[in-house]
Amino acid sequence: MADDPATEILDATYRALCEHGYANLTLQDIAVEADTSKASIHYHYDSKNQLIAAFLDELFERFIDRVDSPVGDTPQEQLDALLQVLLSTDADPSLREFRTAMLELKAQAPYDPTLQERLTEFDEVLSEQLRAILAAGVDAGGFDDTIEPTHDAEYLTTTITGAHTRDIAINQSSEQLYVTMTRHIERHLLADEQPEVAQ
Amino acid sequence: MADDPATEILDATYRALCEHGYANLTLQDIAVEADTSKASIHYHYDSKNQLIAAFLDELFERFIDRVDSPVGDTPQEQLDALLQVLLSTDADPSLREFRTAMLELKAQAPYDPTLQERLTEFDEVLSEQLRAILAAGVDAGGFDDTIEPTHDAEYLTTTITGAHTRDIAINQSSEQLYVTMTRHIERHLLADEQPEVAQ
Repeated sequence: MADDPATEILDATYRALCEHGYANLTLQDIAVEADTSKASIHYHYDSKNQLIAAFLDELFERFIDRVDSPVGDTPQEQLDALLQVLLSTDADPSLREFRTAMLELKAQAPYDPTLQERLTEFDEVLSEQLRAILAAGVDAGGFDDTIEPTHDAEYLTTTITGAHTRDIAINQSSEQLYVTMTRHIERHLLADEQPEVAQ
Repeated sequence: MADDPATEILDATYRALCEHGYANLTLQDIAVEADTSKASIHYHYDSKNQLIAAFLDELFERFIDRVDSPVGDTPQEQLDALLQVLLSTDADPSLREFRTAMLELKAQAPYDPTLQERLTEFDEVLSEQLRAILAAGVDAGGFDDTIEPTHDAEYLTTTITGAHTRDIAINQSSEQLYVTMTRHIERHLLADEQPEVAQ
């Protein structure tokens, strides 16, 4: 249970999104999940749109926490850890429902500049983190020196986005893509000879 | 103008989807676009879902026509032509609206097995065509012989899907990704030395 009502409403928004999807989501659904009233929600958030924006801001903070500090001693390990986080499907049983709601939000973005702005931030922080890992890997020698960090990061970001879309649209597990991406990275992005790691 | 009423209704469905999106689409919207009555639509299609399924079947036929006979004398040219078709944004002024509606449909797929089945067919025909082009390219020598056609085709399909999602979600033109994909293909998929083409 969250500490304060505004945060509890955001947690309830996550559960309500998973249960109802975005298109059919009402403040009443969120009030039921939060065990509170619509009036109480309106006290904290003016509208469904404002609540969703606050929810995405909160989600963005958590996303930054997950993406910004990749686990691993080398850039290769960090890239692998990041892909595992982004493509795994078994960490959270509500993940599929949540990804479905996120895909709905993406389809609404052209009609909602605030929403599009938030989604763009998610994309940029991921792309930038991938770029930083690739650049560090080239510098350390573990990644092939023909890598163009900005372009390759853009490419990886697009592929990860596509894996999430296919997971929902055609029920193609993104974990399968993790395997394919790992082979791809080994073949195309890693240097043929790995530098020795200090023990 | 289409020849028969059922086809005219499908054409009107395209225009109505572009204008209203999928979530808010009603048979009345389609009737207005087709300049006919809801009763007339019901004569041909039982429900909105059945009409959308028929619409996707029609779209699938056109998609197969576009994807199945890629232009070009060599597998490289065919791959490039296919990517141009799939990632260009200026061929049709209603394309963005249509891609937005398609993304909505993708987000609805988990709730609608018929829809998911149709979307899976699109994915499979694209993936198979890419696989065939890559395999032909390896055989002809223009593509690197370390290519794994099935896996690389899966990877390209996922990236193309991601380009379409990002086009809508964050207004990132898929044409930019065409440039990135072309560099990627040149670096990673083409053989270092190209076979001579008979003049």
